[in-house]
Amino acid sequence: MISVSPAGMSHRIPDLAQRKLEDARIAEKARRFRQKGCQVVAVQGLGFVGSAVVAVVADAKNSAARPRFYVIGVDLPTPESYWKVAELGAGRAPVVSLDRKHQELIRNAVKINQNLDSSASEEIYSLADIIVVDVPLGVRDRFIKTPSDIKIDFEGFKKAVQAIGKTMRPRALVIVETTLPVGTCANVVIPLLKKERARRGIKSPLLLSYAYERVMPGRHYVDSLKKYWRTLAGIDKKSVEKTREFLSSFIETKTFPMFELEDIESAEIAKSLENSYRAANIAFIHEWTLLAEKTGVNLFAVIDSIRVRKGTHDNIRFPGFGVGGYCLTKDALLAQWGLKHFFKSGHCLETSLKALWINNEMPEHTLDLIRELAGSLKGKKIVVCGVSYLADVSDTRHSPAELLVNLLIKSKAVVVVHDPSVRVWNECPGIKVQQDLAKSIEGADGIVFTTPHQEYAGLSAKAILGRAGKKPFLVDAQNIINDKKAEELRKRGCRLSGVGKGHWRKKNYHVAAKR
Amino acid sequence: MISVSPAGMSHRIPDLAQRKLEDARIAEKARRFRQKGCQVVAVQGLGFVGSAVVAVVADAKNSAARPRFYVIGVDLPTPESYWKVAELGAGRAPVVSLDRKHQELIRNAVKINQNLDSSASEEIYSLADIIVVDVPLGVRDRFIKTPSDIKIDFEGFKKAVQAIGKTMRPRALVIVETTLPVGTCANVVIPLLKKERARRGIKSPLLLSYAYERVMPGRHYVDSLKKYWRTLAGIDKKSVEKTREFLSSFIETKTFPMFELEDIESAEIAKSLENSYRAANIAFIHEWTLLAEKTGVNLFAVIDSIRVRKGTHDNIRFPGFGVGGYCLTKDALLAQWGLKHFFKSGHCLETSLKALWINNEMPEHTLDLIRELAGSLKGKKIVVCGVSYLADVSDTRHSPAELLVNLLIKSKAVVVVHDPSVRVWNECPGIKVQQDLAKSIEGADGIVFTTPHQEYAGLSAKAILGRAGKKPFLVDAQNIINDKKAEELRKRGCRLSGVGKGHWRKKNYHVAAKR
Repeated sequence: MISVSPAGMSHRIPDLAQRKLEDARIAEKARRFRQKGCQVVAVQGLGFVGSAVVAVVADAKNSAARPRFYVIGVDLPTPESYWKVAELGAGRAPVVSLDRKHQELIRNAVKINQNLDSSASEEIYSLADIIVVDVPLGVRDRFIKTPSDIKIDFEGFKKAVQAIGKTMRPRALVIVETTLPVGTCANVVIPLLKKERARRGIKSPLLLSYAYERVMPGRHYVDSLKKYWRTLAGIDKKSVEKTREFLSSFIETKTFPMFELEDIESAEIAKSLENSYRAANIAFIHEWTLLAEKTGVNLFAVIDSIRVRKGTHDNIRFPGFGVGGYCLTKDALLAQWGLKHFFKSGHCLETSLKALWINNEMPEHTLDLIRELAGSLKGKKIVVCGVSYLADVSDTRHSPAELLVNLLIKSKAVVVVHDPSVRVWNECPGIKVQQDLAKSIEGADGIVFTTPHQEYAGLSAKAILGRAGKKPFLVDAQNIINDKKAEELRKRGCRLSGVGKGHWRKKNYHVAAKR
Repeated sequence: MISVSPAGMSHRIPDLAQRKLEDARIAEKARRFRQKGCQVVAVQGLGFVGSAVVAVVADAKNSAARPRFYVIGVDLPTPESYWKVAELGAGRAPVVSLDRKHQELIRNAVKINQNLDSSASEEIYSLADIIVVDVPLGVRDRFIKTPSDIKIDFEGFKKAVQAIGKTMRPRALVIVETTLPVGTCANVVIPLLKKERARRGIKSPLLLSYAYERVMPGRHYVDSLKKYWRTLAGIDKKSVEKTREFLSSFIETKTFPMFELEDIESAEIAKSLENSYRAANIAFIHEWTLLAEKTGVNLFAVIDSIRVRKGTHDNIRFPGFGVGGYCLTKDALLAQWGLKHFFKSGHCLETSLKALWINNEMPEHTLDLIRELAGSLKGKKIVVCGVSYLADVSDTRHSPAELLVNLLIKSKAVVVVHDPSVRVWNECPGIKVQQDLAKSIEGADGIVFTTPHQEYAGLSAKAILGRAGKKPFLVDAQNIINDKKAEELRKRGCRLSGVGKGHWRKKNYHVAAKR
């Protein structure tokens, strides 16, 4: 069996005998590292979070500036997952990031310090003093609108927890970092672990804590683990103490102190709540974006004027194209599900769920602006500039560009997709992402800016109009085009529209541009 | 005719002849101040905003440290309003504030520098170089739930603007500070002024700007004008320049730079938007408050842990009792009304309006908690601690305590209302506000904390239980009682509940209190 990485690297999945051999090698290494005073850490799941965690934990040093941990990154021996194990084993980051430090840490750990290995074998947990759970837990359909219909894909997560219970050392510490519906540790994780441990006759108390991650994509991928606040909670004092000690070994807690909550439910809620808050703040501005467009107002300037109010208004969001990423697009659904299933409550997180829907529908407004300028989209060449959901980041998970591109394709437009940071669009493998902007806009009927990548801001009016078709249209969903450039574009025959840019709709908008 | 202040001071309203005499005196003073190089400023409306504005403008100094302006505070010769004119004329602040500086500035200006007078005569605008409009513009029913039914009380505001148009000097600058529905300056203020000016044959262009205020009640009442950011927009360059010059004379613009928007609509929207944002953030937390109560979680601790995320999450709100004040409770309604009436748009500010409704209904949740502990409320003595809508502030406008008190009275409870900062409850003149807390809770069946006044935090468990009835209940809607005190209260037989304090509902909540 073969497992292929998104970049196209093929890896043969080892069979049981090969895995046993590899297990023995790792066990021997673990023994030697332990002799040198290192703890053994297994990280379960080598996705977006686990891939950062292995790098940072392997980089932690003891007082003699030597590696503090021997780290084993673990994922499954399946076609979907094994490539991550193989890539990490070869010293390459399983998740490609724009943060060079990430790749550097991994190479150093694998090649030089040799304190980072990878494994597709679940028996490997039996070597660990600390097991970090970074297996994702997803919703089946994040677009669902009936709260009682929310479904969680628990199977993979439960199997992962069981695997730990079956093999873990009795006194090992389990740290769950996965975002969970409130009540999951108490109702799923702890019972599963206890059951497996009881079956094995383990009497010592389980050590477990919940310390959700706040890993962010982009150039500060590594630092979003090391230089950022962390919240934790444990099932007892000892678990909390051990977790605090472990996390302090790689988090700069002097600048980013840790926060200990009294129970695990509090921490589970905290994660859903903080992401729901952000999502709600993004959704909030959408109705004011539409108001600005209707009243001829430049909402970006209005928001600039409000953001000066430090402490209360400095995080008010600008108009935008939509919301992406794995967290803001779903975490309210997790909390809603937990509330219903683990607490038998009919209470509805109405505002938080509504925010998800508004954010999901945001790209449709950009489509409205496109239609306004283009009329029928059939057969028109439209260049979507930006696939990732953040500027200068390669992350495309749950990207709103996906929604727009699908809508454009449905409208029979000829869609060309460009992104300087994205080589492979994992979620839309059938769509080729162009890297050459000039070539992409060649003869285009319309251009849409959907991600505020630096490259787009640098584009001159001349460069756009020299390449595109005759009298093209341009929809700026990301405040890429300033008023001066807008005037220049319009003078040269470009039809122009922008999310939140009501002033562009005024006949005399160029007057404002000159002031 | 008599006009009586809320504190009970009676003032005879002068007749026309008396007013003419007073006008002549003020005109003579204006002439003399103008000779000394001072500008004459009329402030229209001596309510919550105008009362602060006259004080601050009268205090502005020129380079020789002498008063820069001669200021005339103007209000109507009616029983409802004249007392403000009379009080100001006597050197007393028309609006009583906890900010001592306010009263001091007014006394200094009236008694020592004598550059502050008051008038009930509209002819007085004819003396002014600058006219500041601080007349409030309210909604008829802020509880309305059908956006198309929103009604604005325009009459008083329109009359006020007309009065200016009829008497103003041709080249005087009009600065509107009143919160307005988007489109009001363009569709109401400017046409009214132009019409009156045309009738008088004035040819010079109207000078007008919109610079909404952000005055806040409490100990920093004066500084909320002097040391806070200000946004402005004008109908032309000259208006903007003159307004900037005027505002800079009393705002500390080095630390709090002013923000100039390109058109008046932008500034009108900004005010509604910023207050709607705050209101939405307050409303957002309510559904998580209920979730915390259902899951046994202390939401205050959870939010503490989230607020460390500077720049994105540090303004997330704590669970609460409700929202009061004149702005957060209505400004979204103004924007919605303007959108419909001045822009003929059917667009609905759904999230912002929903936030108002949620906030309006918040006190009902406190009532639910009271009922849970008290059962029937009939004939029970319940002490509502806190009438103002902010801690250690006397402001009771649109206070949520009003909603709770009305609901309790409807439930036939014997309601006693206490507030250390409020002597007269303007909005509920029939209810006497008690000042003596110990006496108020004498024999009470239940106590509810509705405002986080300092006095309440200082109250010991002993003090509460020594006075109240046998086994009283206590509902903490404002995080007044910490876990230690809660345990003490409970041990002594007090039944306890708190908004957002899910952990108090757990049987073993005292364990958490000890940790």
